[in-house]
Amino acid sequence: MTIEQWGVFETVLDGPSSGNPFRDVALSATFSNGADEVTVDGFYDGDGRYLVRFSPPTPGHWRYRITSNAAGLDGLEGGFRASEPTAGNHGPVFVAGMFHFAHADGTPYRPVGTTVYNWVHQPPELYLETLDAVTEAGFDKLRFLVFPQGGNHIAHIPERFPFARTDDGGWDVERPDPEFFQQIDGAVADLLERGIQADVIILHPYDRGQYGLDGLTAEQDATYLRYLVARLSAYRNVWWSLANEYDQHERPEERWDDVFRQLEAIDPYGRLRSIHNWLRLYDYNKPWVTHASIQNGWAVAEPGRAVLYRDAYRKPIVLDEIKYEGDTVERWGNLTPEELVHRFWIATVSGVYASHGESFRDERDSLHIVSGGRFQGTSPARLKFLRRILEEVDGVGLDPIDKWDDDTSTVGIPGRMYLRYLGRRSPGSWAFWLPQGVEGERLEIGDRFRVEILDTWHMTITPVNEIFELDHVGRNAATAPGAVQLPAGAAIALRITRVS
Amino acid sequence: MTIEQWGVFETVLDGPSSGNPFRDVALSATFSNGADEVTVDGFYDGDGRYLVRFSPPTPGHWRYRITSNAAGLDGLEGGFRASEPTAGNHGPVFVAGMFHFAHADGTPYRPVGTTVYNWVHQPPELYLETLDAVTEAGFDKLRFLVFPQGGNHIAHIPERFPFARTDDGGWDVERPDPEFFQQIDGAVADLLERGIQADVIILHPYDRGQYGLDGLTAEQDATYLRYLVARLSAYRNVWWSLANEYDQHERPEERWDDVFRQLEAIDPYGRLRSIHNWLRLYDYNKPWVTHASIQNGWAVAEPGRAVLYRDAYRKPIVLDEIKYEGDTVERWGNLTPEELVHRFWIATVSGVYASHGESFRDERDSLHIVSGGRFQGTSPARLKFLRRILEEVDGVGLDPIDKWDDDTSTVGIPGRMYLRYLGRRSPGSWAFWLPQGVEGERLEIGDRFRVEILDTWHMTITPVNEIFELDHVGRNAATAPGAVQLPAGAAIALRITRVS
Repeated sequence: MTIEQWGVFETVLDGPSSGNPFRDVALSATFSNGADEVTVDGFYDGDGRYLVRFSPPTPGHWRYRITSNAAGLDGLEGGFRASEPTAGNHGPVFVAGMFHFAHADGTPYRPVGTTVYNWVHQPPELYLETLDAVTEAGFDKLRFLVFPQGGNHIAHIPERFPFARTDDGGWDVERPDPEFFQQIDGAVADLLERGIQADVIILHPYDRGQYGLDGLTAEQDATYLRYLVARLSAYRNVWWSLANEYDQHERPEERWDDVFRQLEAIDPYGRLRSIHNWLRLYDYNKPWVTHASIQNGWAVAEPGRAVLYRDAYRKPIVLDEIKYEGDTVERWGNLTPEELVHRFWIATVSGVYASHGESFRDERDSLHIVSGGRFQGTSPARLKFLRRILEEVDGVGLDPIDKWDDDTSTVGIPGRMYLRYLGRRSPGSWAFWLPQGVEGERLEIGDRFRVEILDTWHMTITPVNEIFELDHVGRNAATAPGAVQLPAGAAIALRITRVS
Repeated sequence: MTIEQWGVFETVLDGPSSGNPFRDVALSATFSNGADEVTVDGFYDGDGRYLVRFSPPTPGHWRYRITSNAAGLDGLEGGFRASEPTAGNHGPVFVAGMFHFAHADGTPYRPVGTTVYNWVHQPPELYLETLDAVTEAGFDKLRFLVFPQGGNHIAHIPERFPFARTDDGGWDVERPDPEFFQQIDGAVADLLERGIQADVIILHPYDRGQYGLDGLTAEQDATYLRYLVARLSAYRNVWWSLANEYDQHERPEERWDDVFRQLEAIDPYGRLRSIHNWLRLYDYNKPWVTHASIQNGWAVAEPGRAVLYRDAYRKPIVLDEIKYEGDTVERWGNLTPEELVHRFWIATVSGVYASHGESFRDERDSLHIVSGGRFQGTSPARLKFLRRILEEVDGVGLDPIDKWDDDTSTVGIPGRMYLRYLGRRSPGSWAFWLPQGVEGERLEIGDRFRVEILDTWHMTITPVNEIFELDHVGRNAATAPGAVQLPAGAAIALRITRVS
């Protein structure tokens, strides 16, 4: 059997089905390539089937040995060969350059994601329609819930739930429904096939008393977490989001710390870990947090705000909710597409990332962020354009250049490339000017640059037919003679690239 | 002997003067009122004199017993009576209401401070002139350096330095100069007498190779810190600022963590502790930090920024450098007074605090922030007006009401009092409107409010001759019929107070 590096190796074992195998059977496997050892949990998948999944971090021959309290499983051995990764497989995503992300092979990853909370809980046709829509729109990350949502805007009660019910109407987390979790596995695998990161939201408060899944105890959380991690962690596109709007749960913050610590301890791959807020930010400085996943659209409603999060956390900032393109009466759901795209560009020139979501009322009286389906909005095409611009950045990511002083927010890679967003202003021309910060390559007299005019709404790139050569370099800024004539209209950006 | 509660009890002991008493003689005293015990370090003050200072946290009889490795000191005992505090003595300042400060007796403390780095190192006349100027201007906190500054804008080399020199030109931190530190004591005591908090900056990088005081080792830091804390911590107005622009020092961040931990361990009173940045923020979420002391003028150059620091740190935010009123060529030193005052008001309606500083070139070719003296600027009078407005707030402090959604930044105490700053805009009238958040008292139909128009520049308070009664209360806002006619001009604020 051959699995590519960073792919998913899976072995199916037959074992006991009496009693409660979820609870009673302990199962782990230690994989070794002779140099490195990785121990992963296996899990019960129902009907006497036990699965072990493993993602080889390096190519080569891997052997494994099963440890279990079930006599028929303990001591089983096997192996497989991991091949070099195929084209398009760049490995899992990690933090790179403090504020950015890259795949394990070094390829930068630029999150331009969207959100469909109950994607997995919909009928198969709608599930597939959403998957196709997200893929075609060019989003490279999808946030979705494991547990189904109750309350407003919910048009569909799912057929399956994660756990069996107890006699008193609670949830028996020691009896997961394998078919429910197979849907989750399948969703992650479907995204992986399309090159999309799966931002898996482990817990959420949107239950409104309907299902009671927001009321698990700490012990129940831990049991569920172990099962989920055993099932999903081998998929290289998994990101862990502990919760959406964690502070709407009635739980002390220490409980979230504990979940982070558990996750850190049991995830053999160290997948990305964060948590998403309502009004109270989690302390993203805590060591087990890999990046900040923040809800705050206001932070990118004007330039100059979101950059403060970078200073506070010194980790990648992903604004995973900046309000949505749509037409709901709620104020979180009625941005114009122009405003949403504007906020993405403000995020970009603040050195942070943002996520999309759509909230037009659909024919089911639901919203895209809730149930999915085709996109109705006009922002996705513009965000695909933004993603193209980000992908063309030759470096780990865009950082503010003269932090806290350049009010119009220029980001880039010092000395090499700059991106400047003019926002709602529409000047007739722009005198060539570059900020100079304290980090990276210094600008020098004689450095030459070309300029492209990006129309972020009309998605055009217009090269300026002129080379700008620096004739003055000061402590905080450099200038070249000449000016760029700008088209009428708002939402213009400038891409300035060193030519020599 | 009677000392008031929170005052400074001091006893002078005669002891050995041979060898190096600073290094060789260990001295501490345990104070007890029968219920509580406090142990403080004593210190050598030169000429065979040893001092022990203690600030009684409660009134009543206090006894002490000396512990020392010097036979003549060990076992000495004594006592004093602590009286009730006299008028104006509200005790030390602590954090209150998460984002604010209050004295130990519950009286709110609103920082409106200024900065004179080398105040203590100037000739006596200039020292006193500064003290009088700061007092008359109404500033209630003063930031100053213990170690003298080298480099630019320094017109005066001080007569005394903190330590004796070693033979190889270094500093012998085990031989402090008592007269130097007596000046520091005196400065803290002088401020205490005038009701001004002493923001003592323990280390700084502004040495430029001139003195070498920025190059102490971790062990030297610890020796110095212990001596400083033994001398100063009994003064109730002491705030500890570990460093100015800490990230200009060439030290790993862990060294600063260690200094915080040492300070926390040896300061018997738990005085406020922070550290001030250049470009890289310290992690103010660390448990030993009591409040964030941040340099970033840009955070209050526009509304909507500084509030993010509150979310990130959940501690009081004091912007201890927002650029200065002055006329230097450096961009940190040439704000107009209008701009500086504007930034203070933005800080206020962001729920944070700011510090003043003045940088006009003076007759000594120095700056006020460097050497002190009379103020030349016109911002101090306006900041005194702001301080008055803050002091009139009947509550722990001003917090944003509808965080992340009210773009014009209204702060207040929900249901009771609101402060709204209109900034550079100058509308002709303002339709009565209040934001509603999720915390505190809810607005209800029939609630009645009066409005005052504050001209933040001309320092006038004009009551509006009308009562506004809420006739609509929504989820996020409430309105009353009628509008407030506003005067022409910028920098208008509105104070809106519930009357029934």
